[in-house]
Amino acid sequence: MSKLIVQKFGGSSVANVERIQAVARRVVSYKKKGFDLVVVVSALGDTTDELIELAGKITSDPSEREMDMLLSTGEQISVALLAMAVHKLGKEAISFTGGQVGIITDGNYTKARITRINANNIKEQLKAGRIVIVAGFQGISMNQDITTLGRGGSDLTAVALATTLGADECEIYTDVAGIYTTDPRIEPKAKMIKAITFDEMLEMASLGAQVMQPRSIEVAKKFNMPLHVRSSFSENSGTVILKEVTRMEDALITGITLNKSEAKITVCDVPDRPGGAAQLFKQLSIGGVSVDMIVQNVSHTRTTDISFTVSKANAHKAIKVTKRAAARIGAGDIILDENIARVGVVGIGMKSHPGVAAKMFDTLARNKINIEMISTSDISISCIIQKKFAEKAVRSLHKNFGLG
Amino acid sequence: MSKLIVQKFGGSSVANVERIQAVARRVVSYKKKGFDLVVVVSALGDTTDELIELAGKITSDPSEREMDMLLSTGEQISVALLAMAVHKLGKEAISFTGGQVGIITDGNYTKARITRINANNIKEQLKAGRIVIVAGFQGISMNQDITTLGRGGSDLTAVALATTLGADECEIYTDVAGIYTTDPRIEPKAKMIKAITFDEMLEMASLGAQVMQPRSIEVAKKFNMPLHVRSSFSENSGTVILKEVTRMEDALITGITLNKSEAKITVCDVPDRPGGAAQLFKQLSIGGVSVDMIVQNVSHTRTTDISFTVSKANAHKAIKVTKRAAARIGAGDIILDENIARVGVVGIGMKSHPGVAAKMFDTLARNKINIEMISTSDISISCIIQKKFAEKAVRSLHKNFGLG
Repeated sequence: MSKLIVQKFGGSSVANVERIQAVARRVVSYKKKGFDLVVVVSALGDTTDELIELAGKITSDPSEREMDMLLSTGEQISVALLAMAVHKLGKEAISFTGGQVGIITDGNYTKARITRINANNIKEQLKAGRIVIVAGFQGISMNQDITTLGRGGSDLTAVALATTLGADECEIYTDVAGIYTTDPRIEPKAKMIKAITFDEMLEMASLGAQVMQPRSIEVAKKFNMPLHVRSSFSENSGTVILKEVTRMEDALITGITLNKSEAKITVCDVPDRPGGAAQLFKQLSIGGVSVDMIVQNVSHTRTTDISFTVSKANAHKAIKVTKRAAARIGAGDIILDENIARVGVVGIGMKSHPGVAAKMFDTLARNKINIEMISTSDISISCIIQKKFAEKAVRSLHKNFGLG
Repeated sequence: MSKLIVQKFGGSSVANVERIQAVARRVVSYKKKGFDLVVVVSALGDTTDELIELAGKITSDPSEREMDMLLSTGEQISVALLAMAVHKLGKEAISFTGGQVGIITDGNYTKARITRINANNIKEQLKAGRIVIVAGFQGISMNQDITTLGRGGSDLTAVALATTLGADECEIYTDVAGIYTTDPRIEPKAKMIKAITFDEMLEMASLGAQVMQPRSIEVAKKFNMPLHVRSSFSENSGTVILKEVTRMEDALITGITLNKSEAKITVCDVPDRPGGAAQLFKQLSIGGVSVDMIVQNVSHTRTTDISFTVSKANAHKAIKVTKRAAARIGAGDIILDENIARVGVVGIGMKSHPGVAAKMFDTLARNKINIEMISTSDISISCIIQKKFAEKAVRSLHKNFGLG
């Protein structure tokens, strides 16, 4: 039996006819090497954003079911065009929507979760020797409605198909060469990471290195499906994401992350009794505001301060909800700070090496960067600092942790 | 039970956001009057042509299955946007693809025929009080592939749904006010026809008055579903198409048609024995060339001439096939004339009024217009003339038959 590879190409990889043709050439070259191929494609370039804009001209509050109906067309266009481009190169290929390949989801439009995949259709087509091209980002609910999987959902389609089909490899083609120790636009000495663990990648992704959708990494981790993130514009190997990475020299940390798209909200003088925080974050949740980092310290009085971060896009909505909730629980002032950045250090190595936190704080202090919030996980430490120091912080951490 | 209306809006009626909103207002106004509504929508403006162009950049010979995959997205975008626009006006609406409302077709991609419609889904939604918005032009084959119904297929979707659902009316909204006695751009005195029979409309449509797709008129005729062709840009009533029309004063003819998109091919000296013509047209059919008008006269020698018309787009392909076939049957020269036009008079009245043909030929003769081919049906007479006389012919016939 031939080895099966699932390849996923993002929007920038199919942004125009020339790039679609380049993807077709790559796909055909793998087919000629004897691989079975399932290819998952995103919408062409900015198509999704253009469709969202079109809907926005009609209503500021579109039905989520209709948004999925609308947005799913983007990937459908891509798969048809890619199939044509593969045909042109003389190979058999067939395109499918998410629904046609049996990607069944729940009914949570715009952010549906895959419940199961009936992959018989794909298997038959592979057996017939065809390259199977699948529209990413979408599925079909039990009552036959078209659903979409949320931003970056094409990654999830690829990983879920690779897992279901027992693929030998799952390649994620993107517009960067792989995962870097930090953003190369900020620190030119950033190096590509050859191998990284799922856990590290999850911290890297959710902390700001937005190369892959976190949910898809979670699924790959759950089913132990190795991922290979690489550039669609070169033949170079990229970053492999695995369960465990054996490194010659166990680096203290793997990468430095940066996120400048969040705002910090502080609720002052929250009465320090059980339930205060619960009520606040319950209201935010009902209001549809996703909260990221939350920090509350012990208090020495009868009140305490709670700080949290939200995406800037949600900041004003969050402030409104927070004000209501704060009034209800008898809290004091609310302070919004949109000029913050989050820098993080990520590395499975820190589990066995004490002193990472100290080294991070010391590095920031030496550079006269004040730390406003700190939050840690098993394999990462994040600090909120003023945005104007963001790049300086990244560069100095990158250097001091020896990543350059 | 509420009266059910099926309304179809063509591409120009939903060409941009403002027009989509206008369609939504019209739909909602009918809903408020108490009608149940099924709305069939075409792709936005030039979307279909743009998608065809995109495919053309990839291959000159695209897979028809993939073309259907590609083109069907156009209508899917329209229905989602229209549903949002209706929601914005406070009414419940739900959009569906052709497949989702059970429009089952054969597997002839790009020109599929509807085999049956499982309308249960639509009926349930209507019962729930929702306006049902259906993507025109498309269906789904038995093996779940997306199919399209060919140019103008949205008309067919509307008529087929109206028939299946037993609608009380089927309205076809377009960018003209209705069907005219002839093309108003050629004869400003052309009048809108208030009522016309299916048969007349079929002659009008296939003879060049391209307001509605002929197949959809055939279906409406077969199931006796009255159609109402009207403008989406005004509130005026348009043209009703019925089985029988009772006219106060039985007009001799109903309209004058003109078609300038055809070319004439003459095969000279075809051996006048059985099978000659058969072989020629069989070859054209195999070659995928649709032939329209065919004329062969009795011969006084052992050979005869056969003339026929094809669409200009197919002319060169037709010439190639014709040359091969002519050589095989031992015919002589082949003459191509692309500078022709077809004028026709159409009217159920000519059945009971002799002399229509004579009057037509006389009118052309008085205007010094030579007739090159003549073809007749029960309710129409067509003449091929030189293209430069086309407008003059239309105007003089329009006047002489008292249509002005």
